Amino acid sequence: MSGLRLLVRDVAQLATPAGREAPLRGRDLGAVEVLEDAFVLCAGETIEAVGRMRDLSRVLEPRDHEVVEVDARGRCAIPGLVDCHTHAAFAGDRVEEFALRAAGASYEALHARGGGILATVRATRAAGEEGLRAAVERHRRWMLRHGTTTFEAKSGYGLDRETELASLRAIRAAGGIPTWLGAHAVPPELDGDAGAYLDFALAEVLPEAARIAEAADVFLERGAFDAAQARRYLTACREAGLALRLHGDQFSEQGAVPLAIELGARSVDHLEATGPDGVRALARSDVTAVLLPASALFLGQPMPPARALVDAGAAVALATDFNPGSAFCESLPLCCSLAATQLRLSPAEALAACTVNAAHVLGRADRLGRLAPGYRADLVLLDAPDWRYLAYHLAGDLVAATIVGGSPVELR
Amino acid sequence: MSGLRLLVRDVAQLATPAGREAPLRGRDLGAVEVLEDAFVLCAGETIEAVGRMRDLSRVLEPRDHEVVEVDARGRCAIPGLVDCHTHAAFAGDRVEEFALRAAGASYEALHARGGGILATVRATRAAGEEGLRAAVERHRRWMLRHGTTTFEAKSGYGLDRETELASLRAIRAAGGIPTWLGAHAVPPELDGDAGAYLDFALAEVLPEAARIAEAADVFLERGAFDAAQARRYLTACREAGLALRLHGDQFSEQGAVPLAIELGARSVDHLEATGPDGVRALARSDVTAVLLPASALFLGQPMPPARALVDAGAAVALATDFNPGSAFCESLPLCCSLAATQLRLSPAEALAACTVNAAHVLGRADRLGRLAPGYRADLVLLDAPDWRYLAYHLAGDLVAATIVGGSPVELR
Repeated sequence: MSGLRLLVRDVAQLATPAGREAPLRGRDLGAVEVLEDAFVLCAGETIEAVGRMRDLSRVLEPRDHEVVEVDARGRCAIPGLVDCHTHAAFAGDRVEEFALRAAGASYEALHARGGGILATVRATRAAGEEGLRAAVERHRRWMLRHGTTTFEAKSGYGLDRETELASLRAIRAAGGIPTWLGAHAVPPELDGDAGAYLDFALAEVLPEAARIAEAADVFLERGAFDAAQARRYLTACREAGLALRLHGDQFSEQGAVPLAIELGARSVDHLEATGPDGVRALARSDVTAVLLPASALFLGQPMPPARALVDAGAAVALATDFNPGSAFCESLPLCCSLAATQLRLSPAEALAACTVNAAHVLGRADRLGRLAPGYRADLVLLDAPDWRYLAYHLAGDLVAATIVGGSPVELR
Repeated sequence: MSGLRLLVRDVAQLATPAGREAPLRGRDLGAVEVLEDAFVLCAGETIEAVGRMRDLSRVLEPRDHEVVEVDARGRCAIPGLVDCHTHAAFAGDRVEEFALRAAGASYEALHARGGGILATVRATRAAGEEGLRAAVERHRRWMLRHGTTTFEAKSGYGLDRETELASLRAIRAAGGIPTWLGAHAVPPELDGDAGAYLDFALAEVLPEAARIAEAADVFLERGAFDAAQARRYLTACREAGLALRLHGDQFSEQGAVPLAIELGARSVDHLEATGPDGVRALARSDVTAVLLPASALFLGQPMPPARALVDAGAAVALATDFNPGSAFCESLPLCCSLAATQLRLSPAEALAACTVNAAHVLGRADRLGRLAPGYRADLVLLDAPDWRYLAYHLAGDLVAATIVGGSPVELR
């Protein structure tokens, strides 16, 4: 093995989803392997070995040189967190709208009045490509401070060719995994004509978007796109080689779950309004249910039926939904706390949901989401005596250090 | 003016509760004064002047020397946050119980089974005075990272003479304001005999506790102390010179509100179960309603009737309830986010509730909770372009710097 080797040693507790399968479902979701007094040995960007300190001499010869050591006494190690649903490519903020909503205005009412998504579209178009790159890079650093070492991010605040493509490029430039959310809203210049907008987007943006993005996404909801429009958009995107995602059942059931299953989407995301039929259908399918509890909290919406989904056998992932309007929150640890307190998921289930299962949604579960040999050496050291502080320490300043691709990175 | 002067300059936005009154009620609660492009001039531990940069030359002569400058470009300044309800004097954690609760066990059921508060009593008694001092000091640093520059903390995990007094001393040693929560639970050695425990606590602990603490507090709830026991405890504490607080209406209405009003308590805290009669009674009284939304979130309980309390004219404060069992959360910014998203309070109301009104609960509103001349020079610089990110940036890494008593302090 050549190249730099990094030894993270004396880890108080190391916790990782068990096994090698993905996605984890049902009881397997809560199967976390915990090693006390552990080490992680990284070779280049990859994990070479994981074990207990007493067994370290079996993998590390005394004469081994060029091993850099990281002292993790009093700290716990978990896999680098994977955020599989963010809208990190935006400029500006929606703090004014947030204050109005605290005073009683509904999210849907603000959206209908030209606030909401379209307010961010104006700011994002005005930012220019450089401004967008700076914004996504800033958001990447915010996420990293909370332990997110891999993030997906969507376009969708451009809604014109130039800004949609600039958004996707900015996400790539910051190391994110880009999703083309071409069907997020109808831009103001088309005055609500969703069909005309899709004509434009599929003809003018898709060919280039498909070269940059890995997946396509659509906001299927009253006031956004209906099921027929979503089907048209997603079908064209699939033909262009993109994986499929859907925003579905956030405020009302509009057919997102059956459409996701029919089209073989990787995920359907939100599900706050999903009823028992949707739960059962997802449990029988290969579509992962991506739950976004910070969004539900931020909007004061009901929480998604997480316990029912897990118990029925659905594949479940957790993500932040980081965006300026409905979830100004980049913290996956907060989402784990909400999972434990609001979604009735155990800390172990929450961990798997924002590591291995989130990696599965991004098509990377063979390399990301576990601390095991052959996986990418992305790990988070928690300032905590028990790894479950990830969920327990609500809004705590928990991330002591992050190692990305085998290298420690500065958080601030 | 002698001594060190510190100039915080080029503040993007400075936000402070307006006026000089305390507590703020009704519409006054949301009256925040915002200055763009501002400065704060501190002389020693006190604020000498606050204003806009264009007016700086009127208060600072060009020949003034010994002025240390802090560059606050791109940052917002708010008063140092005041946490008026914490249980920071504990050892150990309750992460195991947290995981059990995520799997469905109720807080009251765990408490009845000898888990809950009594689990922390065992750990706290075992820690010894040095261990307790180290724990409170660690918790103080955690709070400071979230912008809390003044904190109250309660004893109540000792329930014997030695550990109760050691807890109060540890709080003082860390710079906190101690409250004797002698009536938190009946210790295991008294086997549920609340009367016998109060005999002991009032005879053996109160005389010395009254020399260290500023206030006394009681947990008035099913399974803890009833109204008659609370009255007995608080009356004796008042005679010993302590201000009075009550934990009331957390799970059920047991007469805490009328008792607090009758005895002239400074506050009644929790109020998740308070009905319309309690709201009306508090609005007519001088008792401050201390709301603890992180605790309600942590336990999955209903939120307290914050909007009704404010609209009725009650004095309302916000606090974390930081403790290992029901609110492992030291972040007042998170409480502000919960206030805006769950309690229907505006960011301005939330700010006043955890600054000036919290200072009022601690008897210090003449010196703490505002950025204005004569107040203590405690301020927080937020890494944000708008001060309302305090509530808007959910679980954000928001606190860029803290100045305590006119001196910048290291956060990490």
